Amino acid sequence: MAVLKKVYGTLTSPPTLRVLASLYEHDLDFEFIPIDIEAGEHKQEPFLSLNVFSLSLSLSYIIKYNFQSISFQDGDLTLFESRAIMRFIAFAYPKPGKEHIFKDPLTQGVVAAWIDVQDHQFNPPALKLINELIFKPKNGFTPDTTAVAEEEAKLAKVLDIYEERLGESEYLGGEKFTSADLTHLPNLYYLMQTPMNRVIESRPRVSAWCARIMARPAWSQVVEMVKNTKY
Amino acid sequence: MAVLKKVYGTLTSPPTLRVLASLYEHDLDFEFIPIDIEAGEHKQEPFLSLNVFSLSLSLSYIIKYNFQSISFQDGDLTLFESRAIMRFIAFAYPKPGKEHIFKDPLTQGVVAAWIDVQDHQFNPPALKLINELIFKPKNGFTPDTTAVAEEEAKLAKVLDIYEERLGESEYLGGEKFTSADLTHLPNLYYLMQTPMNRVIESRPRVSAWCARIMARPAWSQVVEMVKNTKY
Repeated sequence: MAVLKKVYGTLTSPPTLRVLASLYEHDLDFEFIPIDIEAGEHKQEPFLSLNVFSLSLSLSYIIKYNFQSISFQDGDLTLFESRAIMRFIAFAYPKPGKEHIFKDPLTQGVVAAWIDVQDHQFNPPALKLINELIFKPKNGFTPDTTAVAEEEAKLAKVLDIYEERLGESEYLGGEKFTSADLTHLPNLYYLMQTPMNRVIESRPRVSAWCARIMARPAWSQVVEMVKNTKY
Repeated sequence: MAVLKKVYGTLTSPPTLRVLASLYEHDLDFEFIPIDIEAGEHKQEPFLSLNVFSLSLSLSYIIKYNFQSISFQDGDLTLFESRAIMRFIAFAYPKPGKEHIFKDPLTQGVVAAWIDVQDHQFNPPALKLINELIFKPKNGFTPDTTAVAEEEAKLAKVLDIYEERLGESEYLGGEKFTSADLTHLPNLYYLMQTPMNRVIESRPRVSAWCARIMARPAWSQVVEMVKNTKY
């Protein structure tokens, strides 16, 4: 019998949601072990040995960037960094004809580029907007309207390029859904709950792409998990 | 005859140096086309079509983060994002027994995790220190000593974890040199030119690893290129 995969994470954390989406997309069974960040559980054993970088996260940093630790276990392998876990799952459990990542260098390269575009271009303004408009109000702080305007402008410029890209192909990595699309789901999900849905909805191709990838059954299963949690 | 690979970039930019190191490591011939960032060449054709994200980079952003555009052409493929280019080269032109990246999911996953650790944990403080201690003085600005102290403390915490990791294996991704090590070379090279070499040299295993990877012939070829350039 295969050993059950384990995910240690937090259901309000984009990296955790990225990993859960990967697991559901590949029809894999797993156990989810929630980490109570506010109680500092991520800085204690057994979690500490799983993700050595937890120690370097102060609580203020976590609140500021809504950054939380994530660890994944599959048999003897323990892995951290949500995109590395997403890549591992896609390489280890591919669905023939529906691969999320490729061993062929060229298609692998294009998907890798758009995974990194999400990380370096889309993610920074998206995360700041989500923090200002969702997490700050939830913790009793007032959003910084100047910061919101600045980050909205940055995100808009990035999405102009996405609009162009999505005129060339149905998905960011090509004609099929890949890890390059999946990696966007958590922050798109949060953005769509804020007035920033306007930067998405005002761009027809980005808007259609967003609706298409959020409608995937695997993502609905993640959303169910998020909605059914109290913490 | 194979079409010559082309690299468009800037020899003071860590992403460009990462790509050049990958090419030399794989014994590939290429043409280097320098981009004059200060003249705004990256926002003009033909470079603009090669890397669509250049448009979103303002000069102040470039100076602040020392972030510059990079594009790579190999036949019909045009790729951006330096780590995606590094991955493509390693997948497309592997040296048997000396692979930098792996098709096997488990070893691929471990290398991917440490590539992302560089990106998310090592890079932010390293880049801020390099900016304060090398690029600011070069442009007539005074380093912010408070910021330097803060970033040094952050980098020290990250390198404590590297010191532990390098007790388990000779290199970050395992017993051989991989893309997980290579991706660190540009910022290590700059850090070693500042008083911040102390955070590296005070950690025996990190210090030995740094010396080992910087002594690679491919990296010496990159350093030669950097030293022979006037801009």
